[in-house]
Amino acid sequence: MDEERARRVHRTLKGKTEVSLKQSIESRADLADVYTPGVGVVSADIGADLSKVWEYTGKGNMVAVVSDGSAILGLGDLGPEAALPVMEGKCALFKRFAGINAVPIVLDVHSAQEIIAAVRAIAPSFGAINLEDIAAPKCFEIESTLARELPIPVMHDDQHGTAIVVLAGLINAAKVRGKPLADLSVVVNGAGAAGVAIMRILASYGVRSICAVDSKGIISNLRSDLTPEKRSLLIEGVIVGGRDGALADALVQADVFIGVSKARVLTADHVRSMAPEPIIFALANPEPEIMPDEAYAAGACIVATGRSDFPNQINNVIAYPGVFRGVLDARIPKITEPMKRAAAEALAELVDAPDREHIIPDVFDPRVVPAVAARVQACSQ
Amino acid sequence: MDEERARRVHRTLKGKTEVSLKQSIESRADLADVYTPGVGVVSADIGADLSKVWEYTGKGNMVAVVSDGSAILGLGDLGPEAALPVMEGKCALFKRFAGINAVPIVLDVHSAQEIIAAVRAIAPSFGAINLEDIAAPKCFEIESTLARELPIPVMHDDQHGTAIVVLAGLINAAKVRGKPLADLSVVVNGAGAAGVAIMRILASYGVRSICAVDSKGIISNLRSDLTPEKRSLLIEGVIVGGRDGALADALVQADVFIGVSKARVLTADHVRSMAPEPIIFALANPEPEIMPDEAYAAGACIVATGRSDFPNQINNVIAYPGVFRGVLDARIPKITEPMKRAAAEALAELVDAPDREHIIPDVFDPRVVPAVAARVQACSQ
Repeated sequence: MDEERARRVHRTLKGKTEVSLKQSIESRADLADVYTPGVGVVSADIGADLSKVWEYTGKGNMVAVVSDGSAILGLGDLGPEAALPVMEGKCALFKRFAGINAVPIVLDVHSAQEIIAAVRAIAPSFGAINLEDIAAPKCFEIESTLARELPIPVMHDDQHGTAIVVLAGLINAAKVRGKPLADLSVVVNGAGAAGVAIMRILASYGVRSICAVDSKGIISNLRSDLTPEKRSLLIEGVIVGGRDGALADALVQADVFIGVSKARVLTADHVRSMAPEPIIFALANPEPEIMPDEAYAAGACIVATGRSDFPNQINNVIAYPGVFRGVLDARIPKITEPMKRAAAEALAELVDAPDREHIIPDVFDPRVVPAVAARVQACSQ
Repeated sequence: MDEERARRVHRTLKGKTEVSLKQSIESRADLADVYTPGVGVVSADIGADLSKVWEYTGKGNMVAVVSDGSAILGLGDLGPEAALPVMEGKCALFKRFAGINAVPIVLDVHSAQEIIAAVRAIAPSFGAINLEDIAAPKCFEIESTLARELPIPVMHDDQHGTAIVVLAGLINAAKVRGKPLADLSVVVNGAGAAGVAIMRILASYGVRSICAVDSKGIISNLRSDLTPEKRSLLIEGVIVGGRDGALADALVQADVFIGVSKARVLTADHVRSMAPEPIIFALANPEPEIMPDEAYAAGACIVATGRSDFPNQINNVIAYPGVFRGVLDARIPKITEPMKRAAAEALAELVDAPDREHIIPDVFDPRVVPAVAARVQACSQ
């Protein structure tokens, strides 16, 4: 990582996207078309029939990428200004991969209630809302409230983008490993936004044995310090909760480790304590829970990370552009659980012959966005 | 006005602007530059020093064009969705005339307090805020509160953009008429957002005799039904308040009529009752208070309207792009009264030899934005 290069690139670009005109404005006639008096006619039409806003404006291809900067990448709570480069990057990827016009909106409010109010206020401008880098546990309430109340899709990508790609990767990893996905015993280390969503999508996809570990150890009904979100994982049967212990205890004879936690928390001994040929998704960024070479040396069958410099990169950018493209084009008002699972299946199927180094399609594979979009749409019919 | 053309243009364009990439993203190296891990470095830098957000992001050239849709053009309160085509048009003009990246933000909240809260929440994303089509009297409180509280410039364009262009036009109209501006007696018909701002800028520029008329007649201290904003015009001496009456009474022997009111409220008889060779700014849109030919026939010296199909168009688009360009480039945190007057003077001076049909520079005159920006900046030094 060349830090000076990153600074230089950002200083030169000053924002990764810009606004451009769809039509040139070089005459009074052009002005009359794009501004007054032309706008008056369509404004009046929309005032009389709100649904015409989709026909006459850019709303239908416009997404707000919203963050309060409370959980920026692995950096923590650095505030809205510090979140802006990340949101700008995300907007650039929305355009590059799905042709979506995305706008970074970083918020100078921080309670769940205030964030909900701000997003609800600006929602009429947008066809969908992408929540990003908002800390757990407030992210759960924010997303579920907005998704319920707004007439447009709302997705917290740190949760569901990650979960979709993890499921896609695990579908193919299970094939390579030669064991049915439903039979894999999975340990998820980290119960923040991504961890919770990963557990939920795996459980809903049929994985029966999921053990969750947070900073205090195995999440079980023996503990009294659980947040409502973590408790609901137990109540709903997403995770198995009868035993106590630390990460090391959870890992014994487990088939899969999924880390959305911290650098270097997984050791070679941990890997050796797992079932034969374990699957290791070490997704902490930029430094994974264990380096791939170390995990392979300890017997891992497949290692995936969040990094682009190793094979099997678990990167949200293969999921969210297609998901949003799908819901925007079909004007689907809500992103449902079946749509997320369908997106994961679409991604998994794009890998023709999965092997240890190829469980996830390439970010630049042009089939990715149309395939995901189509499967998401098929779910809503 | 070809209404079907307006609908067709809007249906085809679906938004007047789009997002485009400043740099192509075609490799993993490009991804690393615009997204992770590159963004992590600059996010951490900004977290440590918030001022670096201006250096590393697009914030400094990004403006939110914000409306709740409560006073859309002359159409009234049609709600946020109906405001979207207007805000999109405004954003297109920001780009075309000043190279500014502007984003339409229409708000589904309507009290002054909620609008203030929403704009305050999203402010970190933007270098400046353009308020638009927000009804009086709440627009006054919204603008003044946000301008005071936010560290970036906030301008309600319906007030100040209009006021700047009216002052510019009146400076040149006074020259053509051959009477000092300060000596002109002015009647302003309409005391909404634009009317109040026009009265204030004229008074601050030295016009001593301003009479304000609203739907109930002359605004005077004899009336007991005035809003706080209208009362403050009297208290501060912006307008002269000793007499009662209707528009017709106010107009007798007046030099200037400025209408920001309704179609066809000014008659030929009204014009004939004014001082010789009166100046008529009939700015109601799309149909002015009096048609130019009628006003000229009744003795008017100069007629200006808001329309592009007559000479002397009073159009905000010659003011706000330069004002925002100026404050953004110099990172001026507040748009002050002297800056607005300076902007008006810059515009007036761009007309080399004012005559009855040329009191305002052309919208497409490439000197406009740099001249206004430079004069606004000079004011802040």
